[in-house]
Amino acid sequence: MKKVKVGINGYGVIGKRVADAVVLQNDMELVGVCDIVSDWRIKMAVDKELPVYAFDDAFKKEMTTAGIPIEGNLDDLIAQSDLIVDCTPKSIAAKNIEKYKASNTKFILHGGEKHETTGHSFSAENNYESAINLDATRVVSCNTTSILRTLTALKRADLLDYARGTLLRRATDPWESHLGGIMNTMVPERDIPSHQGPDAQIVDPELNVITSAIKVPQTLSHLHYWNVKLKKHATKDEVLNAFKTSSRIKFINYDEGLVSNNTIKEMFLDMGRPWGDMYEVAIWEDMLKVQGDELFYAYVVDNQAIVIPETIDAIRALTGIEKDGAKSIAKTNESLGII
Amino acid sequence: MKKVKVGINGYGVIGKRVADAVVLQNDMELVGVCDIVSDWRIKMAVDKELPVYAFDDAFKKEMTTAGIPIEGNLDDLIAQSDLIVDCTPKSIAAKNIEKYKASNTKFILHGGEKHETTGHSFSAENNYESAINLDATRVVSCNTTSILRTLTALKRADLLDYARGTLLRRATDPWESHLGGIMNTMVPERDIPSHQGPDAQIVDPELNVITSAIKVPQTLSHLHYWNVKLKKHATKDEVLNAFKTSSRIKFINYDEGLVSNNTIKEMFLDMGRPWGDMYEVAIWEDMLKVQGDELFYAYVVDNQAIVIPETIDAIRALTGIEKDGAKSIAKTNESLGII
Amino acid sequence: MKKVKVGINGYGVIGKRVADAVVLQNDMELVGVCDIVSDWRIKMAVDKELPVYAFDDAFKKEMTTAGIPIEGNLDDLIAQSDLIVDCTPKSIAAKNIEKYKASNTKFILHGGEKHETTGHSFSAENNYESAINLDATRVVSCNTTSILRTLTALKRADLLDYARGTLLRRATDPWESHLGGIMNTMVPERDIPSHQGPDAQIVDPELNVITSAIKVPQTLSHLHYWNVKLKKHATKDEVLNAFKTSSRIKFINYDEGLVSNNTIKEMFLDMGRPWGDMYEVAIWEDMLKVQGDELFYAYVVDNQAIVIPETIDAIRALTGIEKDGAKSIAKTNESLGII
Amino acid sequence: MKKVKVGINGYGVIGKRVADAVVLQNDMELVGVCDIVSDWRIKMAVDKELPVYAFDDAFKKEMTTAGIPIEGNLDDLIAQSDLIVDCTPKSIAAKNIEKYKASNTKFILHGGEKHETTGHSFSAENNYESAINLDATRVVSCNTTSILRTLTALKRADLLDYARGTLLRRATDPWESHLGGIMNTMVPERDIPSHQGPDAQIVDPELNVITSAIKVPQTLSHLHYWNVKLKKHATKDEVLNAFKTSSRIKFINYDEGLVSNNTIKEMFLDMGRPWGDMYEVAIWEDMLKVQGDELFYAYVVDNQAIVIPETIDAIRALTGIEKDGAKSIAKTNESLGII
Repeated sequence: MKKVKVGINGYGVIGKRVADAVVLQNDMELVGVCDIVSDWRIKMAVDKELPVYAFDDAFKKEMTTAGIPIEGNLDDLIAQSDLIVDCTPKSIAAKNIEKYKASNTKFILHGGEKHETTGHSFSAENNYESAINLDATRVVSCNTTSILRTLTALKRADLLDYARGTLLRRATDPWESHLGGIMNTMVPERDIPSHQGPDAQIVDPELNVITSAIKVPQTLSHLHYWNVKLKKHATKDEVLNAFKTSSRIKFINYDEGLVSNNTIKEMFLDMGRPWGDMYEVAIWEDMLKVQGDELFYAYVVDNQAIVIPETIDAIRALTGIEKDGAKSIAKTNESLGII
Repeated sequence: MKKVKVGINGYGVIGKRVADAVVLQNDMELVGVCDIVSDWRIKMAVDKELPVYAFDDAFKKEMTTAGIPIEGNLDDLIAQSDLIVDCTPKSIAAKNIEKYKASNTKFILHGGEKHETTGHSFSAENNYESAINLDATRVVSCNTTSILRTLTALKRADLLDYARGTLLRRATDPWESHLGGIMNTMVPERDIPSHQGPDAQIVDPELNVITSAIKVPQTLSHLHYWNVKLKKHATKDEVLNAFKTSSRIKFINYDEGLVSNNTIKEMFLDMGRPWGDMYEVAIWEDMLKVQGDELFYAYVVDNQAIVIPETIDAIRALTGIEKDGAKSIAKTNESLGII
Repeated sequence: MKKVKVGINGYGVIGKRVADAVVLQNDMELVGVCDIVSDWRIKMAVDKELPVYAFDDAFKKEMTTAGIPIEGNLDDLIAQSDLIVDCTPKSIAAKNIEKYKASNTKFILHGGEKHETTGHSFSAENNYESAINLDATRVVSCNTTSILRTLTALKRADLLDYARGTLLRRATDPWESHLGGIMNTMVPERDIPSHQGPDAQIVDPELNVITSAIKVPQTLSHLHYWNVKLKKHATKDEVLNAFKTSSRIKFINYDEGLVSNNTIKEMFLDMGRPWGDMYEVAIWEDMLKVQGDELFYAYVVDNQAIVIPETIDAIRALTGIEKDGAKSIAKTNESLGII
Repeated sequence: MKKVKVGINGYGVIGKRVADAVVLQNDMELVGVCDIVSDWRIKMAVDKELPVYAFDDAFKKEMTTAGIPIEGNLDDLIAQSDLIVDCTPKSIAAKNIEKYKASNTKFILHGGEKHETTGHSFSAENNYESAINLDATRVVSCNTTSILRTLTALKRADLLDYARGTLLRRATDPWESHLGGIMNTMVPERDIPSHQGPDAQIVDPELNVITSAIKVPQTLSHLHYWNVKLKKHATKDEVLNAFKTSSRIKFINYDEGLVSNNTIKEMFLDMGRPWGDMYEVAIWEDMLKVQGDELFYAYVVDNQAIVIPETIDAIRALTGIEKDGAKSIAKTNESLGII
């Protein structure tokens, strides 16, 4: 089987994870990773023997001077790739798109970008098939991905009337927590509803979902509290069974000592996951409560990891090497150790 | 007018604030404060020239040795007081109650204690009159006080159908943040619903309220997000007017730079409030959103301060020196600078 | 006695404190405060009934629109002031200087600026007299002020050979801790020696002092550890007596429960100091250790407050209304409650 | 070659790391791990297919009920092991010692315990040979290990006169940061000198070293600042070469973006080290400064990881399967990826 040639633009929090995940797929080949930095971060790619590209010739010069072997610039990477996963920061990605389009190279953006930039927003369990052979898609953000996974599961079981969520967001990622964090405070998002609800509705317009969001001073993960109006009175088991229809939802139990998001992080480090990554949404099973036609639950979202399997699936969908979403999801799950 | 003689048992976060507040009332006299510590904390009371009592003779010896002038022990304080405000930590308070009862001295407990210990739970705007001339009451906790103030305001305007809240709790108080805090994590309460909803229902059984709660790593204040089902479609102004019926709800605006609980704390320090105390519930006016018959809003609760005016009112109610709750509230507000 | 007319440019962390301190002096008059913001911060000045000025006419329009009564612009403030205390952020201050000079108005800068901008660096106990009737001075930074107070005290007692310090810096101030903090990390300054040692040597070139500095994730205060080579073997009492020659060094004791900088902050809030301000350097008396000819000690510096009394003294020195530094210091101390 | 049979008592922060490290050694066999908990933590050992033992029969029952397959109790583990690595918390370890002694089983304790409990304190590069065939040793603490590695390197090059250090300690470990942390504060150790200096002197009494220590609110690692008096004027290269004589000291550069301990942690996660573990002392090469006969430098210590290679070496020394310390260190380094 011919492998899909994947290039990655932007070797940061997401880019480095996508790179490692692509390497694990037997139907993909990593052409290289592209960046602009010359410091320890890109040197890790060199240590992993990944081909490194510079954004342009000016950066190529800088990076070469810093001792980093450079294979070429972004144009070279595009030329050799069937598909580019763009993991550059917001606003920069938009500028690269012209290049991808001009060269007729398929591309994937991430949740920081607007839906309009690609015209398609991707969530594997929701709309894999609609992305097949498209030129481009946007993998929705970490928060939106988690909302779609969980609410869609309830919807599949015909349980969901409407959902109201409070989203506690990590303030910054660990690797840049020396830069722009928040300290001994909580910072609400200005607007209620916050943007995550409408973002989920781009993928599934039928969802009745409203969210509020707030930043809290920790770096590990997001944590969502939900209050869901069910279509009918239901048992806890019915709800759990609904969630079990997603292979990327994991149940955890407070009474087993998993009482906080730091303990969850430690468990995934114990499991040997790279960076302690949790690709799954972790719902507290024993905290979950059904009361009449109301459902209450909380879960944790690893904002650095949750979109990685989604991105791998999106590569298969766009390139059409797998037409069946369920098969792609199963394949991705196995490669990443999601069971 | 004969002043009510008030003794305070426990000179900690709450006790020291109640002491200062009692001193400001022209119908009360502070007999003294009682504690067991010999360190800088109680020396602040000495510096303020408050009469200091020791819990018992053993502590009296210790404290005297540490250079603290001691007026007597708890029994002496009780003997000279018309009413004791017990601000000792949970579980200790319960043991003191026998003493208060044995000497026929009225007493006030705080929210950490159970309703059953006094048989009455107090919230000034809700049930001042029901406490008049009782022997004892429990001023409900900071979170419960804020829930009662806000939901009762909506109820008075006949707007409230039911309310669902997510409570983000400060992890520990500033003065003991060197001891038992949480770091770079979030810790949900085990049970949904959390205890604050049922606690509010002790005061007003008609309230349909369910809460979830989680500790976040900051020391400043609690922050609540609410999703309220209204009895009817309403305008934002109707909701704001409902909240304005409480003199202890303050509107703040995100767009005036009050974007987080640390900025709110700084504003109250700027105002010259002692310890930067905020006795009010601070609702973000411009974030508040009405959508059909649903209301969304967020507010901040200063857990160290909100029960102070409540406690002053409770003293008046129990001792019967003011039979009109509205008058007591107005008097307390003026003394503390609540406008 | 004619009072010195003082204008304050920049109503932030330092500016608002200087304003309140000026108001407390019977030989000074606060003409007004000048800023560019239209939010809650400057409204606090309005609430305190301070005359407010806008930086220029564009900001005047903005601030007026926001409901803030404006007395005039910076030029107007300068015209009515004998002296301007510039508390604007680094780099902005430099631009204002031309205005002060053009109008022959004396001015004071703060430690963020370079020595060269004024040609004089001020530390009250070190060089008050040298600033008398100068046109301008720079009050040295919080860290440098603390170094000068403590090492000069040792020098006065002929004890100081050389000093090596490790400076743990607060990462950001409480009022802006929602913006650019550091989280769950420690960030060393790039260069050893760090700049504080040389900055102290500008005021006293004889000091043999080398420092290293690091930011830690808290907002309350700086904390310095010192290792001092003494000129001779000394007793602990000799060292303590040396420190006692400064009225702005305060001894605290770990064994009295003051085990951390949050407890110290709480103590100053208990004392009723505005914002819990600590103008003094707080040295742990019982931790201090003399071993042969080596001295080890640690102290806490309130970076928001320590330069306030220094600034008041600098006003008196520049304007010549008090020729005796010791008298100015005593007067300032009394007004601010430093005993 | 007959493999040494190693049992591990206590499957916590250190125990789980030692277990994984033992598995990597071709001259050791992991008999099993023993604990008292029934929650997610020990289930990770089950998932890794490690034989699990219960501390006693009561715990065996509890753990079995929780679904954990139990091989036996501590006595059984001891009976099958040539050596026990005790990783239980302080004070508990002391009680187990009697068992190890009674059964004539060699054992290793960690730095939390006192030297006297074993009569030997171990640091691989310092005194491997002195531990050969002993019954027991104590691997010194993370801080002490780092002090010995670095100062001994300077001593070997005949550069060290005396050393004065300021130790910034992490407040708690990530996995238990929901329990007893410190928040927005800094907490000095009561006594100067702190205990780490004397602890290093147990291993090398010739070291002239004095330390101060303070807890800061982060969970990642310790960071030490040192001021060293050299025996003579030296160049930076001489100092660097001295440090290079240790295979467990790693140079990092601030100018390559490694500006804080969170970036260092991320780099080790990028490298694929389990838990992002850093077994080495990471000295900032470009920050290091020599000035005359004074040396200034800072380094980071991963308190969860640094003693792991030391413990592996200690197993070889006690059991005598490798008489040459250098060979054991090289073997351990290779197995753990220390290069």
